[in-house]
Amino acid sequence: MGVKVGIIMGSQSDWSTMKEAATVLDELGVAYESRIVSAHRTPDRLWDYGKTAVDRGLQVIIAGAGGAAHLPGMMASKTRVPVIGVPVQTRALSGVDSLYSIVQMPKGFPVATMAIGAAGAANAGLMAAGILALNDPDLAQRLDAWRAALSASIPQEPQDD
Amino acid sequence: MGVKVGIIMGSQSDWSTMKEAATVLDELGVAYESRIVSAHRTPDRLWDYGKTAVDRGLQVIIAGAGGAAHLPGMMASKTRVPVIGVPVQTRALSGVDSLYSIVQMPKGFPVATMAIGAAGAANAGLMAAGILALNDPDLAQRLDAWRAALSASIPQEPQDD
Amino acid sequence: MGVKVGIIMGSQSDWSTMKEAATVLDELGVAYESRIVSAHRTPDRLWDYGKTAVDRGLQVIIAGAGGAAHLPGMMASKTRVPVIGVPVQTRALSGVDSLYSIVQMPKGFPVATMAIGAAGAANAGLMAAGILALNDPDLAQRLDAWRAALSASIPQEPQDD
Amino acid sequence: MGVKVGIIMGSQSDWSTMKEAATVLDELGVAYESRIVSAHRTPDRLWDYGKTAVDRGLQVIIAGAGGAAHLPGMMASKTRVPVIGVPVQTRALSGVDSLYSIVQMPKGFPVATMAIGAAGAANAGLMAAGILALNDPDLAQRLDAWRAALSASIPQEPQDD
Amino acid sequence: MGVKVGIIMGSQSDWSTMKEAATVLDELGVAYESRIVSAHRTPDRLWDYGKTAVDRGLQVIIAGAGGAAHLPGMMASKTRVPVIGVPVQTRALSGVDSLYSIVQMPKGFPVATMAIGAAGAANAGLMAAGILALNDPDLAQRLDAWRAALSASIPQEPQDD
Amino acid sequence: MGVKVGIIMGSQSDWSTMKEAATVLDELGVAYESRIVSAHRTPDRLWDYGKTAVDRGLQVIIAGAGGAAHLPGMMASKTRVPVIGVPVQTRALSGVDSLYSIVQMPKGFPVATMAIGAAGAANAGLMAAGILALNDPDLAQRLDAWRAALSASIPQEPQDD
Amino acid sequence: MGVKVGIIMGSQSDWSTMKEAATVLDELGVAYESRIVSAHRTPDRLWDYGKTAVDRGLQVIIAGAGGAAHLPGMMASKTRVPVIGVPVQTRALSGVDSLYSIVQMPKGFPVATMAIGAAGAANAGLMAAGILALNDPDLAQRLDAWRAALSASIPQEPQDD
Amino acid sequence: MGVKVGIIMGSQSDWSTMKEAATVLDELGVAYESRIVSAHRTPDRLWDYGKTAVDRGLQVIIAGAGGAAHLPGMMASKTRVPVIGVPVQTRALSGVDSLYSIVQMPKGFPVATMAIGAAGAANAGLMAAGILALNDPDLAQRLDAWRAALSASIPQEPQDD
Repeated sequence: MGVKVGIIMGSQSDWSTMKEAATVLDELGVAYESRIVSAHRTPDRLWDYGKTAVDRGLQVIIAGAGGAAHLPGMMASKTRVPVIGVPVQTRALSGVDSLYSIVQMPKGFPVATMAIGAAGAANAGLMAAGILALNDPDLAQRLDAWRAALSASIPQEPQDD
Repeated sequence: MGVKVGIIMGSQSDWSTMKEAATVLDELGVAYESRIVSAHRTPDRLWDYGKTAVDRGLQVIIAGAGGAAHLPGMMASKTRVPVIGVPVQTRALSGVDSLYSIVQMPKGFPVATMAIGAAGAANAGLMAAGILALNDPDLAQRLDAWRAALSASIPQEPQDD
Repeated sequence: MGVKVGIIMGSQSDWSTMKEAATVLDELGVAYESRIVSAHRTPDRLWDYGKTAVDRGLQVIIAGAGGAAHLPGMMASKTRVPVIGVPVQTRALSGVDSLYSIVQMPKGFPVATMAIGAAGAANAGLMAAGILALNDPDLAQRLDAWRAALSASIPQEPQDD
Repeated sequence: MGVKVGIIMGSQSDWSTMKEAATVLDELGVAYESRIVSAHRTPDRLWDYGKTAVDRGLQVIIAGAGGAAHLPGMMASKTRVPVIGVPVQTRALSGVDSLYSIVQMPKGFPVATMAIGAAGAANAGLMAAGILALNDPDLAQRLDAWRAALSASIPQEPQDD
Repeated sequence: MGVKVGIIMGSQSDWSTMKEAATVLDELGVAYESRIVSAHRTPDRLWDYGKTAVDRGLQVIIAGAGGAAHLPGMMASKTRVPVIGVPVQTRALSGVDSLYSIVQMPKGFPVATMAIGAAGAANAGLMAAGILALNDPDLAQRLDAWRAALSASIPQEPQDD
Repeated sequence: MGVKVGIIMGSQSDWSTMKEAATVLDELGVAYESRIVSAHRTPDRLWDYGKTAVDRGLQVIIAGAGGAAHLPGMMASKTRVPVIGVPVQTRALSGVDSLYSIVQMPKGFPVATMAIGAAGAANAGLMAAGILALNDPDLAQRLDAWRAALSASIPQEPQDD
Repeated sequence: MGVKVGIIMGSQSDWSTMKEAATVLDELGVAYESRIVSAHRTPDRLWDYGKTAVDRGLQVIIAGAGGAAHLPGMMASKTRVPVIGVPVQTRALSGVDSLYSIVQMPKGFPVATMAIGAAGAANAGLMAAGILALNDPDLAQRLDAWRAALSASIPQEPQDD
Repeated sequence: MGVKVGIIMGSQSDWSTMKEAATVLDELGVAYESRIVSAHRTPDRLWDYGKTAVDRGLQVIIAGAGGAAHLPGMMASKTRVPVIGVPVQTRALSGVDSLYSIVQMPKGFPVATMAIGAAGAANAGLMAAGILALNDPDLAQRLDAWRAALSASIPQEPQDD
């Protein structure tokens, strides 16, 4: 059977951010595909990806984009598969443009927006896993373990460099 | 069996925003509970809600809060159940404070952030439904119908008042 | 022959802003059509509008939208017809979200962005007329007259109410 | 016959941004002139440029400026030739000052505002080409080809560095 | 002899703000003229006003404008007479657009920027008086008295309404 | 013996905000004085208040101001008595100006900054009480009770209006 | 007896900022402990720290965090011991997210917020000392001396590098 | 006779910005003094400087500061000599904090605010010269020449590096 998570992004340059989502999914043993789908440069690719998402068995789509970031919202308009949006940091506006373009969706088409940048991408992977874990007890256990390990890694006192 | 969606909010005054989530869930035939859980005024209630969420069968938690909005993020730290955050509009900062406090979560604890205010609350309901629909074909159909009806309601031309 | 200017907007509620563009075009004797084309609720309508724009003889598309305002940019990705974007003022973020979502387009797909709100819509009409006037000497004359009348209407001294 | 596109900018330091417009026009085979026209330091040059624009056959003026960026708007007040504005990124305010100074024009004098910085400058060139292409079928073909090549250049999957 | 202070503004609608400057000058016994000079709608009027300012004996120009507020800065480029700028509050951006357009002037052309809105306009009057007082001992005394009266008007304790 | 808490504010108009601090102190049985001390209009009053604070037995100073809010920071420079700052909401900038002017103090002179507006003023009263409670077991008990009552007042479920 | 000041922070990476608080407390001879207490990764540690703060004799808690900075506010909800918050500077939003998440607390749970970054951390130490000095005359003297030395260190004229 | 222009700043670190004002005054042949006057660290120095300004013959005070920048506004409250404020760029907030703290002065105490950073400091020098030139024909001539030279230095066309 096909992968359940699609990681899509507007351009190659977004990959340095979005691979954080891939890394987390790797750590949790969740299969995924990664694709470049530009809302503006390849709108028909976006259309096809959205229209076939349900039939292909995708259960979560993680979409990262920067600036006038239309990819996550347009994908949400084309499929009922939950879309997680990652605002990529930008040069002039630091990703506030990306954030507003992704989070301020009108009624009808939610995008589950994460933090700006790499932390947001990693969290997109965790959110995807949390959704899949609702019906995958083994993944739920792995996610619990991942979270427990993160908590256990925190020392009691700060250390000088 | 118990409800699968919990709508929680920081105070009674958030209800005028958050009931938009409830309305959407009603329209989609999704059962839910609504609770006031203040991160600051009732932290132990937050703790208990988070710790028991999995065992009680909750599959999605919708959390709305305004200002220094800590409820969604703290809930995400207490349970692996997916948390959807709704930034409530505020008086001085228009909800930018709520948005930043909810969306800028560190790696490990994602909050699926929606738009500021009522549209965001309605979308939280839709996002919850979209997640549940992954394993509920009937709900998936109702969600598709809801979306189709929304699209069908758009006239071709604008009308003068 | 068909109209040369299309005024499109994301929802009926945008019309109170966008009709300022229509008013200016009326004053300048420029024919136009006005349509509701929602990027998210009617994406296929957007697709069709964009794909047929050249063949239908459209020479300028004025697109207004608010919040995560994807309509102008998505239209720019579907047609080479110049797209003028109008950021509609929003409740929580006053249209800064609309502005960033419209103006921060990536290389390849420009949107000629106007000011937030009604003044921006009126100016969209003027910009459309200015473009058409490049090949319509009569319109150029009417535009010059419109501008001259505006300048002539400014009194020398301010008046108490 | 003279060039149809004028690229003007407030200072030599804006050229590193504005030459992106020149590059795009070169790629599309559109002739242009580039001039330094400072709204504040050479206001009379601005006046003359604006007053003679129509008679010289200019069809589009691309104007870039930073900070209290008055050049695009003042040019728009002096000529009916369409003015495209490019907000140059600034040190303290990252170009938000440039953006607001350019885009927030009052009714009567539109400036077709592009994104902050180099992407905006490149898009200014494309917008100029799109306007000229309305009456130049060969340019329209070249513009379509430029857009098609951009889309074709997008790979299916992101690559690690 | 002519007046020494010119109060200029971009439109009639700015007068409700700018008359605060006039009121303060009235209180201090400083003669002034008030004119509507729109940078965009009456650029030639701006040019003439600036070019003749020194010869007409103007010693301070107070210029108020909103949005893409180019009037103060353009006036500063046309005359060495000190220009005081007042950012008028705007609907969508609350005057932040006016403030940035006025204060962020490049090296060479300072505008003495005041607070957004009515307080800023009143202070423009006081700043003008402070400049004239440098060579007008009587005005200096009146200004000192005005300031002393303001301070004396402050009660020791706040009063319930 | 004299009061231990001074509530000061820049103008009478700040009292509608600052009386929230007074109300909380009343509820907690903490004596206080309230004074208008304008940093700009009565700088000598500020000087005297600061210089005599320790000798008069003041243990906390609550200072509210709006706009270019210099009162809290200037008071902090004149006395080692802890200063709590309350940013008063403003018309154009909603209190962001007040917040930045109060919170961004340089090393050496801390101001304990509260939220913008009435909630911040109430919290200033609670912070003052918390400081005094460190050496007043009865007040500590009353503060605990106040907090417990606040928590107990939160209903389990939201109510429709 | 135990230390009276606790310095807590959300992660090891905050220590480079928060050690400025420690340095100031060292200079003033105030004992403290420093701990990593992550609101999200170690919420139970936060709970325990807050619940035992009074009994352990803590009189001031300094809490630093960045992004969706929930640590200071959640600590304030768990104990009446005064909490001083330090917004740590962040990559995308420069600490504005941290500031809003810390300062905009609702009525009932004040956090004494300092400036963003290292200056804020140093001032947190000074504020803590100022609170303790209310009942420690020796510390009051040392604090006065520290302040006097700071003032004495300021030269009369600036020096070229 | 003494100098007519005082350049003051909050700390040594501001000098790298403020010396731009000194350089311009040097170029224009205007004598000045430069002093470090910290509003918070040396408030009594500020008091003395302000109180003696008129008697010492100062005609303009240029005051630069960053962050919670209280120096310009407090100086304006102590003397009727015109105060020009320069917002120094800051690390976290890029000088927006400085700008708001300086420009948003209440009615009664204007500060002639310049752009953030070095350009603003240079313009402070020019504004000072423009004020002094009102009664110094020789300086007026030198200022005109300085402005003319600036304009003459602008080339017609941009040059590649």
